[in-house]
Amino acid sequence: MDFTTNAAGRKVPTELAGRKLRPYEGKLADPIYPTLQKKVKMWQGDDKVVGSLKEAIMKVGLKDGMTVSFHHCLRNGDDVINTVMQTIGNMGIKNLRFASTAVFPKQEPLVELMRSGVISRIEGSMNGPVGAEASKGTLKAPAVLRTHGGRSRAIETGELKIDVAFLAASQADEHGNFTGIVGKSAFGPMGFAFADAWYADKVVVVTDNLVPYPSLPISIQESYTDYVVSVDSIGSPEGIASGTTKVTDDPDRLRIAEQVVDIIELSGLLKDGFSFQAGAGGTSLAVVKFLHERMRDKSITGSFAVGGVTQLVTDMLHDGTIKAIIDAQAFDLAAVESLREDRNHVEVSHYHLMNPHTRSCVVSHQDVCFLGATEVDVNFNVNVNTHSNGILLHGTGGHSDAASGSRICFIVAPVYRKKNPIIRDEVTTITTPGSDVDVIVTDSGIAINPKRQDLMDKVKGSNLPLKTIGELRDMAYEATGGPQPLELTEDIIALIEYRDGTIVDTVWKVK
Amino acid sequence: MDFTTNAAGRKVPTELAGRKLRPYEGKLADPIYPTLQKKVKMWQGDDKVVGSLKEAIMKVGLKDGMTVSFHHCLRNGDDVINTVMQTIGNMGIKNLRFASTAVFPKQEPLVELMRSGVISRIEGSMNGPVGAEASKGTLKAPAVLRTHGGRSRAIETGELKIDVAFLAASQADEHGNFTGIVGKSAFGPMGFAFADAWYADKVVVVTDNLVPYPSLPISIQESYTDYVVSVDSIGSPEGIASGTTKVTDDPDRLRIAEQVVDIIELSGLLKDGFSFQAGAGGTSLAVVKFLHERMRDKSITGSFAVGGVTQLVTDMLHDGTIKAIIDAQAFDLAAVESLREDRNHVEVSHYHLMNPHTRSCVVSHQDVCFLGATEVDVNFNVNVNTHSNGILLHGTGGHSDAASGSRICFIVAPVYRKKNPIIRDEVTTITTPGSDVDVIVTDSGIAINPKRQDLMDKVKGSNLPLKTIGELRDMAYEATGGPQPLELTEDIIALIEYRDGTIVDTVWKVK
Repeated sequence: MDFTTNAAGRKVPTELAGRKLRPYEGKLADPIYPTLQKKVKMWQGDDKVVGSLKEAIMKVGLKDGMTVSFHHCLRNGDDVINTVMQTIGNMGIKNLRFASTAVFPKQEPLVELMRSGVISRIEGSMNGPVGAEASKGTLKAPAVLRTHGGRSRAIETGELKIDVAFLAASQADEHGNFTGIVGKSAFGPMGFAFADAWYADKVVVVTDNLVPYPSLPISIQESYTDYVVSVDSIGSPEGIASGTTKVTDDPDRLRIAEQVVDIIELSGLLKDGFSFQAGAGGTSLAVVKFLHERMRDKSITGSFAVGGVTQLVTDMLHDGTIKAIIDAQAFDLAAVESLREDRNHVEVSHYHLMNPHTRSCVVSHQDVCFLGATEVDVNFNVNVNTHSNGILLHGTGGHSDAASGSRICFIVAPVYRKKNPIIRDEVTTITTPGSDVDVIVTDSGIAINPKRQDLMDKVKGSNLPLKTIGELRDMAYEATGGPQPLELTEDIIALIEYRDGTIVDTVWKVK
Repeated sequence: MDFTTNAAGRKVPTELAGRKLRPYEGKLADPIYPTLQKKVKMWQGDDKVVGSLKEAIMKVGLKDGMTVSFHHCLRNGDDVINTVMQTIGNMGIKNLRFASTAVFPKQEPLVELMRSGVISRIEGSMNGPVGAEASKGTLKAPAVLRTHGGRSRAIETGELKIDVAFLAASQADEHGNFTGIVGKSAFGPMGFAFADAWYADKVVVVTDNLVPYPSLPISIQESYTDYVVSVDSIGSPEGIASGTTKVTDDPDRLRIAEQVVDIIELSGLLKDGFSFQAGAGGTSLAVVKFLHERMRDKSITGSFAVGGVTQLVTDMLHDGTIKAIIDAQAFDLAAVESLREDRNHVEVSHYHLMNPHTRSCVVSHQDVCFLGATEVDVNFNVNVNTHSNGILLHGTGGHSDAASGSRICFIVAPVYRKKNPIIRDEVTTITTPGSDVDVIVTDSGIAINPKRQDLMDKVKGSNLPLKTIGELRDMAYEATGGPQPLELTEDIIALIEYRDGTIVDTVWKVK
């Protein structure tokens, strides 16, 4: 395997399983490349509804070595991924490339399929046990982790060629028009699923609510659907509220949230037309809550918010604090309800929301985002993929897409957690390069990226506890004694793709 | 030029301007072919809003010989096509392939651009003066007329490669999310425009209602938009009600409409779940009206109607006679209003509605359609393109798409008009081949296609005036003295493409 050093200073391979890899360039690469050529073929009048997952898998001709994809809109409530993969395993098909947009602790049963060789490669985010298992070197080839926008890009260009997409739907008709917005298991927008439906060789819709044609609303059209399988349950929509979806009550984190809003106000962006990307996690939710209060107090009418959407955001829509919600993923059931009822709350694909290689995407227009971090280094690089022990435990999500697109990208994090310095000389893994990150807001002070002199000028003279990133690192090291040494092997566990498809970092196996 | 005889018995060329042509095969061809490879490129943060059409035309790099496209959703009220083409002409660009989905009498000024060589080729429907001019042999190459579904198919496969699409929008934002559903010039769904936006090399949105981001609802996304031009007016939405949009009061035509509904009832299709494609034209509107009354009287709840949508159809939705409207084109302003207000009235693309080379399309699921005809021959072939004098005066529209997809395709027509026999031995031009046509309902009797023995069995014993198609032709010839002889040259004016891209007929220049 040949290696090169990319613009973030990381050693990355130049080829993977025959695909030439491009190293991260220090800014968004802008290649002109052709999209995947789809084969089009005609419906012959046959019945698309098949009696079982097994029958659908046989009909699409799934074979050893192929690539299967899923969306994770049901998050930790999803039952489709486990059931389909178990069925595939029972049928004796193996050596698959597994390309779910993400997996969660709920998908722990996949670990057994990794060990038994049903899944031999993974391209997609891995939260929890599947990532931990991959970290042991179980897979035959390095995993590839992409951003949400980057994944839709890779599907369109054919870099991630999907043989069969199994797409969970909370409602579908017999010809395969489908949605996640209505039905007993409604989970909201299915932003991830669009690119899969458009470009997969075969599309199997899996639903627990098969209704007579036409199923409305139509999120994704029958034009792309090969088969429809009716199952008892696609999962528990309550599971979409996985991760923290309660506003924090920790005073340190509340102060961080308040300071984020202070800086937004000082930046001059907090005025009519303001826009932001919301998220989950206690601190991010607190930022949304404080933004709402601040905007209401000052009679500011925002333009739009981008999801992951929670009730904190739909509350802003309902009282007119923002005009619109552009939504590709719901993080609670209030968001699903709002998507059903509110005309200015619309479903979009992650292609539209975050794909950088289009004529424009939504995140490129948003004012601010406020994202978490597992680690931040003195170059403002952020890690959300690996823990400081080197184990791969989280996907990239829309982290770099939001960071790269927003006018100001805030990272909210403590300076250290227990004995582990969060602000440090070097992150274990680069998820989002420092050039996309503008402000780090911690419990012990705020560091602004020196490239944002404009922002420094604006907050100068305020009461905010400004520090250099080096000072924050020093505090972290003083409190913890510095990072634990990490002994790595030369085996590659995973590659971290930046949103433009370049390789921003390599995840090495821990000794 | 080489010729062959296709399955409809017509002499058709086998090549046009380097593109190999496939002859019509007697049924829907089912080739497996790859789609157009798009080049993807990134937004650089620049302003998409440009000051004038001229500036947009310069920015997209429009050059001699390129292909420009438009949608005709504003029908005879459209001002965008004339204005853009006039601007292009004034800039000295020439030899263009003009690929509007259709043109109407309003677009008569294009005739001058055809004569001056600004437009040297046309691929698209031509209603009125532009067709008449093409019939004189003004264009450098034969025109290509496609069905609505066939056009989206040809765009996706690259057979119709569009360099620049100029798409009228009644609302758009500065990054090019756009729609026809809201705004002072709202014209309803823009089903035609989707394929153009997805596959054109450059997309220019032309709007008279530029609003702050995000423009909602989003019919077509910014992902595809290169530039946005703000103009004073895109046209008069009242113009969408071009053609007859009033129910006929002619007793003969009312009887025809009543008989269509009688046959539908006898066929057994008129029950809960019934579906149909509506249209414009006095007789078709009368059919919708009678269907409504019959279904209400018998407490039948239909499934869906497909547009062209008028108030007669939205009335059915509003009183619960049908459950849904699947709409790609509005034929009056009541339809536009309903699309805005009614959750079960949804916009779809013509790709979804009618493209046969997808995994299924809407028209394949509808029970019945009732279409007009300029001529019908004894093999049930239908002509809607040329008049009996050989002059090209009408586009194909969704005629063959609807005919091919529906369980029963009705053609409604008089046996003769003035001195011209409508039912005849041979149509001047085949638009829709007889294999797609099931029943001809005329003012002098009803002929059922012999291939539909099942239908003959069902209407047997009724009071309906059943005839053979030969008997209807005899009546037509007796009343008129038969068809006027038509002297044709060997020059080709246009090719008529069937929905699958095969050539069903050739339009020859009249001597």
